[in-house]
Amino acid sequence: MAGRKDEDLKDLSLLGSQGTNYSFDYDPAVLETFDNQHPNRDYFVKFNCPEFTTLCPKTGQPDFATIYISYIPDEKMVESKSLKLYLFSFRNHGDFHEDSVNIIMNDLIELMTPRYIEVWGKFTPRGGISIDPYCNYGKPGTKFEQMAEQRLFNHDLYPEKIDNR
Amino acid sequence: MAGRKDEDLKDLSLLGSQGTNYSFDYDPAVLETFDNQHPNRDYFVKFNCPEFTTLCPKTGQPDFATIYISYIPDEKMVESKSLKLYLFSFRNHGDFHEDSVNIIMNDLIELMTPRYIEVWGKFTPRGGISIDPYCNYGKPGTKFEQMAEQRLFNHDLYPEKIDNR
Amino acid sequence: MAGRKDEDLKDLSLLGSQGTNYSFDYDPAVLETFDNQHPNRDYFVKFNCPEFTTLCPKTGQPDFATIYISYIPDEKMVESKSLKLYLFSFRNHGDFHEDSVNIIMNDLIELMTPRYIEVWGKFTPRGGISIDPYCNYGKPGTKFEQMAEQRLFNHDLYPEKIDNR
Amino acid sequence: MAGRKDEDLKDLSLLGSQGTNYSFDYDPAVLETFDNQHPNRDYFVKFNCPEFTTLCPKTGQPDFATIYISYIPDEKMVESKSLKLYLFSFRNHGDFHEDSVNIIMNDLIELMTPRYIEVWGKFTPRGGISIDPYCNYGKPGTKFEQMAEQRLFNHDLYPEKIDNR
Amino acid sequence: MAGRKDEDLKDLSLLGSQGTNYSFDYDPAVLETFDNQHPNRDYFVKFNCPEFTTLCPKTGQPDFATIYISYIPDEKMVESKSLKLYLFSFRNHGDFHEDSVNIIMNDLIELMTPRYIEVWGKFTPRGGISIDPYCNYGKPGTKFEQMAEQRLFNHDLYPEKIDNR
Amino acid sequence: MAGRKDEDLKDLSLLGSQGTNYSFDYDPAVLETFDNQHPNRDYFVKFNCPEFTTLCPKTGQPDFATIYISYIPDEKMVESKSLKLYLFSFRNHGDFHEDSVNIIMNDLIELMTPRYIEVWGKFTPRGGISIDPYCNYGKPGTKFEQMAEQRLFNHDLYPEKIDNR
Amino acid sequence: MAGRKDEDLKDLSLLGSQGTNYSFDYDPAVLETFDNQHPNRDYFVKFNCPEFTTLCPKTGQPDFATIYISYIPDEKMVESKSLKLYLFSFRNHGDFHEDSVNIIMNDLIELMTPRYIEVWGKFTPRGGISIDPYCNYGKPGTKFEQMAEQRLFNHDLYPEKIDNR
Amino acid sequence: MAGRKDEDLKDLSLLGSQGTNYSFDYDPAVLETFDNQHPNRDYFVKFNCPEFTTLCPKTGQPDFATIYISYIPDEKMVESKSLKLYLFSFRNHGDFHEDSVNIIMNDLIELMTPRYIEVWGKFTPRGGISIDPYCNYGKPGTKFEQMAEQRLFNHDLYPEKIDNR
Amino acid sequence: MAGRKDEDLKDLSLLGSQGTNYSFDYDPAVLETFDNQHPNRDYFVKFNCPEFTTLCPKTGQPDFATIYISYIPDEKMVESKSLKLYLFSFRNHGDFHEDSVNIIMNDLIELMTPRYIEVWGKFTPRGGISIDPYCNYGKPGTKFEQMAEQRLFNHDLYPEKIDNR
Amino acid sequence: MAGRKDEDLKDLSLLGSQGTNYSFDYDPAVLETFDNQHPNRDYFVKFNCPEFTTLCPKTGQPDFATIYISYIPDEKMVESKSLKLYLFSFRNHGDFHEDSVNIIMNDLIELMTPRYIEVWGKFTPRGGISIDPYCNYGKPGTKFEQMAEQRLFNHDLYPEKIDNR
Ligand SMILES: [Ca+2]
Ligand SMILES: [Ca+2]
Ligand SMILES: [Ca+2]
Ligand SMILES: [Ca+2]
Ligand SMILES: [Ca+2]
Ligand SMILES: [Ca+2]
Ligand SMILES: [Ca+2]
Ligand SMILES: [Ca+2]
Ligand SMILES: [Ca+2]
Ligand SMILES: [Ca+2]
Ligand SMILES: [Ca+2]
Ligand SMILES: [Ca+2]
Ligand SMILES: [Ca+2]
Ligand SMILES: [Ca+2]
Ligand SMILES: [Ca+2]
Ligand SMILES: [Ca+2]
Repeated sequence: MAGRKDEDLKDLSLLGSQGTNYSFDYDPAVLETFDNQHPNRDYFVKFNCPEFTTLCPKTGQPDFATIYISYIPDEKMVESKSLKLYLFSFRNHGDFHEDSVNIIMNDLIELMTPRYIEVWGKFTPRGGISIDPYCNYGKPGTKFEQMAEQRLFNHDLYPEKIDNR
Repeated sequence: MAGRKDEDLKDLSLLGSQGTNYSFDYDPAVLETFDNQHPNRDYFVKFNCPEFTTLCPKTGQPDFATIYISYIPDEKMVESKSLKLYLFSFRNHGDFHEDSVNIIMNDLIELMTPRYIEVWGKFTPRGGISIDPYCNYGKPGTKFEQMAEQRLFNHDLYPEKIDNR
Repeated sequence: MAGRKDEDLKDLSLLGSQGTNYSFDYDPAVLETFDNQHPNRDYFVKFNCPEFTTLCPKTGQPDFATIYISYIPDEKMVESKSLKLYLFSFRNHGDFHEDSVNIIMNDLIELMTPRYIEVWGKFTPRGGISIDPYCNYGKPGTKFEQMAEQRLFNHDLYPEKIDNR
Repeated sequence: MAGRKDEDLKDLSLLGSQGTNYSFDYDPAVLETFDNQHPNRDYFVKFNCPEFTTLCPKTGQPDFATIYISYIPDEKMVESKSLKLYLFSFRNHGDFHEDSVNIIMNDLIELMTPRYIEVWGKFTPRGGISIDPYCNYGKPGTKFEQMAEQRLFNHDLYPEKIDNR
Repeated sequence: MAGRKDEDLKDLSLLGSQGTNYSFDYDPAVLETFDNQHPNRDYFVKFNCPEFTTLCPKTGQPDFATIYISYIPDEKMVESKSLKLYLFSFRNHGDFHEDSVNIIMNDLIELMTPRYIEVWGKFTPRGGISIDPYCNYGKPGTKFEQMAEQRLFNHDLYPEKIDNR
Repeated sequence: MAGRKDEDLKDLSLLGSQGTNYSFDYDPAVLETFDNQHPNRDYFVKFNCPEFTTLCPKTGQPDFATIYISYIPDEKMVESKSLKLYLFSFRNHGDFHEDSVNIIMNDLIELMTPRYIEVWGKFTPRGGISIDPYCNYGKPGTKFEQMAEQRLFNHDLYPEKIDNR
Repeated sequence: MAGRKDEDLKDLSLLGSQGTNYSFDYDPAVLETFDNQHPNRDYFVKFNCPEFTTLCPKTGQPDFATIYISYIPDEKMVESKSLKLYLFSFRNHGDFHEDSVNIIMNDLIELMTPRYIEVWGKFTPRGGISIDPYCNYGKPGTKFEQMAEQRLFNHDLYPEKIDNR
Repeated sequence: MAGRKDEDLKDLSLLGSQGTNYSFDYDPAVLETFDNQHPNRDYFVKFNCPEFTTLCPKTGQPDFATIYISYIPDEKMVESKSLKLYLFSFRNHGDFHEDSVNIIMNDLIELMTPRYIEVWGKFTPRGGISIDPYCNYGKPGTKFEQMAEQRLFNHDLYPEKIDNR
Repeated sequence: MAGRKDEDLKDLSLLGSQGTNYSFDYDPAVLETFDNQHPNRDYFVKFNCPEFTTLCPKTGQPDFATIYISYIPDEKMVESKSLKLYLFSFRNHGDFHEDSVNIIMNDLIELMTPRYIEVWGKFTPRGGISIDPYCNYGKPGTKFEQMAEQRLFNHDLYPEKIDNR
Repeated sequence: MAGRKDEDLKDLSLLGSQGTNYSFDYDPAVLETFDNQHPNRDYFVKFNCPEFTTLCPKTGQPDFATIYISYIPDEKMVESKSLKLYLFSFRNHGDFHEDSVNIIMNDLIELMTPRYIEVWGKFTPRGGISIDPYCNYGKPGTKFEQMAEQRLFNHDLYPEKIDNR
């Protein structure tokens, strides 16, 4: 066993770099990957992202959410600083809550072709009602496809207590 | 990928409109839908609705609840502002807790013909006892019918702690 | 869809009535039912009852518990004010915690012949130890009999944190 | 020492009565009092009222709040069932949050002439911001006038955590 | 320094005794005291009593509360098992919440003549509103009289969050 | 007593209006006021604003905070929808956390000349450390000036538990 | 239905008795049973025991834990006061955490031959790490043997948050 | 500024030593001190001790508490490992809760002659009631004597919520 | 049944020893085992480790996590003090979060050849996003291999609420 | 009003810079300041630092704490990235908990000469006891000197609940 060597990290342009350019226009091209060092093992990585904001497509009013992303990597893994920049790129972008969550998952599938992935958005209320979309995906033709269906069927049997305060 | 275009939103009469008319008489006709942009995917949408109030059918006393609605859309999705107006329409209406929850689910099935839907009401106590009805539904003849039974059979194995304070 | 009509409620002698007589001697006869308006659907109703008190059969000392009752109705449903009076009737009655929970479930099965029912009592400690009995029941010869066994087998995998404070 | 005697309770028309009439138009006349049995002592009574709802005066949209009322009685005390009916009378009434809280306090001062009283409303958010007004009062020319100023000056040094969920 | 000797405990008839007789009729005579071993020091003792129940004087319905009692002893201290029996004696007794709290404090003043004492009752809701009375007392003509006024003037600046669940 | 009349509301251009224009450039001119209907009384109004975001002046990275604003009005009160728009105007604006909080307070003093006001910002961490600035103000030459100093001297004696999760 | 009769309780030597002798040397002989009155039903009984202490076998330092015991009775049930005395008997006894939990379960199996039983110990940290052993058992050759394996395989998928404070 | 040098630590016989001898008989002689390196400054040190256990002087039953000790040092400070051993020495010792807390404070005053000290014990319930004694002390003839009285007069205005679970 | 005998403990070089040498360079050789005394039973042992810190491999900045380790022992069990030293050895070591968790599990498999093991790391955020990797393992060719897959497929259906505070 | 201009930020060598050098040897020289833009106002800035670690001076074992730093600036303010690096510099440094907190405060006084400052450390337990030192300071000869004494005298009247889990 050994830690990451410098050569393992040489493709990461963003981590630890100076003068990061923050784009607030939707931009999936900012996403970067590094190699999974444990490809023979199925394991989970979760990103907790409580600082997500976008715009309502009709009213232009800012919306806020916490986004939870969990995935089982295949060969590639998303680098977390690039994920941060990607999520920032929704800042001045407008979409329904239900669409944002699907788009984030689609872009990460495109990037990493993970074995499994799920995205759960928990938004703050408008007009007293809050909306929490959840989508998931398992690689077609693998056991992860069944896994995705099983997890969807058992999704959120215990909704968290919400009182808008 | 792209955000919602204006033409996708043109059927929504309520969102962002001025002079909304709040009806406090039960009225399922106020519900509106928009198109599901991800119909090839099974995914969940949850509405947290902690501002629900209705009347006791026998005593006329106001009742209060938090309503949690989760569904897997088929072709149509309920627009959240119209859902707000629909739930407001129970304000001066009288029904048992067990009936309100079933009625809400019936109206949303009628509106959207979702693949799956569930509604959980958590009411405040009267006489020291509170009542929490839960119902669900999967489209008959599909795998979602089995999903509904499976979720009912595993419903609420861990009741939340209640002390009336 | 319509709310409960007066004729649906005419058999309920207790709800909204004046001069309720509170009996503190065990009395299952006080329980009343009303008709299930959604008998074609399997759905849950839960009662949260944090104001339950009885007596220790040997020492006579009062015991206190929160009782959670969940059931899937068949044709009849227990009216909540009558349930309150029934639970009050344990006030000056003596039984072990394990027996009270079984007796409550037996009486409700006798009253309603529900498809499924479960009762969980969570008592306060005596001598530093608290006792939480749980029993359940599915109508024999139906799928609810298997449901009951499945729920028992998966009961309380995550005991709540208890520190006696 | 003795419990309340029947003659002490004979002026209470609402408590335990049948056929209570719930008015949803603002009506301070519904408030009733009973005599303070401990008038030589300064002591506090608090009402926790988490089921308060009114209407926005401009949009007509329902608003929801928890109202906390604390007072030191003089000769008269407000009966809690009449307080419930009074708070219900805001149900179809329109006012700004800041005004509702002041009006409730004014009506209770008019009713009871308490030595001290305070009212704190905690509303759910609209547009992502929630509003919590607080007012108080001490009988002019008594030490309670200074008490009111002291409590206002020390009000809410530790705002509760709010995240709109 | 030494632990309590047997002779210090010989007046306690209830602690550790067999066959305790639980009276459910109001009975302050059951209270017992023991000697304060640290009379030269002003210090606090608090009793947390979450298992208090009494009856509504008008409807006869059981009421439930947590009672918090804090005092600074003078020469005598109330023995905790006798306090338990005293609180049990309210079980079949009827009084308004505001009166119960004052009566408990009066009886403990009569028993112990403490330097300072306060009693706070936190009841469960009836009709959606819960009532929390608080009273206190400092020995007249001592600094504890001013202490009582100071504590009353600063009482409960931060009401706990109540949602009736 | 009476609710707000239409004439009281006629100066509010934003509340309930259609087509609100959301500006994301710092703009205090968007703030609007309405008249205080209780100017003879000193009372508090608090705004809970958990959806505040701005930019780091040096790195351009988005920052997130919950802003708590509490004030005692004099003649004018800030309208909450205009406050929302004002806070939105920091969205693409860069300032240190310590400066944002002071600027918000300065703008509200300029707008309302309140008797007392305080602003507390609670930001999310960067590099493992989070920053919470707090400022307050009392009208010079009034008792509120002393009130402000007293509150500053007693500020935050109990820092909330922070673990960055 | 009836409560426990005196004859049902005559074998219990400890409950309500005077002069209990507390042994702090490991002693499983102190355990007592009473008859299960509902032997035709499979149901759970849980004991919450947050006052468990033992000694480290190597250092002699006291260890502290909360022990959760859940079982499905067969013919016999452990009496709770005898369980308290049994757990007290570990007070001056030394064993590894992993062993204590297995020993408690072995002794209760020996005593009651339950259909199913599980024991979960949650200890406080030493050197910054805390240890939580969990064991379970189903009667060999019955469905409860499979139940035990199923519960072990699903054990603690959601570890509670621990921060050593 | 510099860290502790070896010579500063040479009087500490217990910290980091092997073969510590745990005495379970009350023994204040085990307490050790080290020198305060900041004697010109008044500052607080708090010990959180959730693993305290002793015996009831009359029944012999174990009692459990969390002990909080806060003090302002003068010249000497109590070493924490010796404090641990001292608190362990109550393990097989019998005293009333009210006495244990006073004894601990007396012993620490004797040891350190602190400028100020307070001890708060929070015990688990017996018979449904828990007892929390609190005592404090300021060096006579100094400002800390007034500080002690001021803190006692303001002690525990917000009793923590207790439900015995 | 009997406690651990001295001979059972004689191979443990670290527990209770003086002069422990803390290495902050990655060193799996520090791990020690003792014999499982219950090898015929499948049972879980969990270690809660909230004091884990390592370095970012690219920036050198310290990272912090809580590590949860759960396993079913075979013949050997890891001694907890050696586990503490092992985890300390990551202190000045650099690796990605995803790698640290896999390395810890690999080393424990190498050490103990457990029947089953899982490791969950929950790190604090960098740039507003926190990362929680989870891996598990069942002995190949046994039922524990299926158990591992089943637990992975059901992993973390309820992500904990994260708000970076 | 205006945001920070580039010239205001030109003395900050660390914020946003590349290739930060993390020193793990105690080094107060790393601290940097920027100018207070609101020097005419007394206001608070708080830093929440949950990622603090140091070494025990006698055993060499790592210690962990959350550090809360609050101050009222005079002319200079500490830059938060430099504060992070300063706190990192304790990583391989040994001191008693009581000393670390005093040293941090001394260094920040030396750096900024603030009007007021306080530092509170909350450490994790060793041997079952955790230690929380708190110190504060007001500029001698100003009102902040009295403020410091007042805050010390009112420090931590409500110790947080600690159970070592
Ligand atoms: Ca809203
Ligand atoms: Ca008890
Ligand atoms: Ca919240
Ligand atoms: Ca909430
Ligand atoms: Ca009620
Ligand atoms: Ca609540
Ligand atoms: Ca509650
Ligand atoms: Ca936190
Ligand atoms: Ca948090
Ligand atoms: Ca420890
Ligand atoms: Ca914790
Ligand atoms: Ca509790
Ligand atoms: Ca508890
Ligand atoms: Ca961060
Ligand atoms: Ca420890
Ligand atoms: Ca804790």
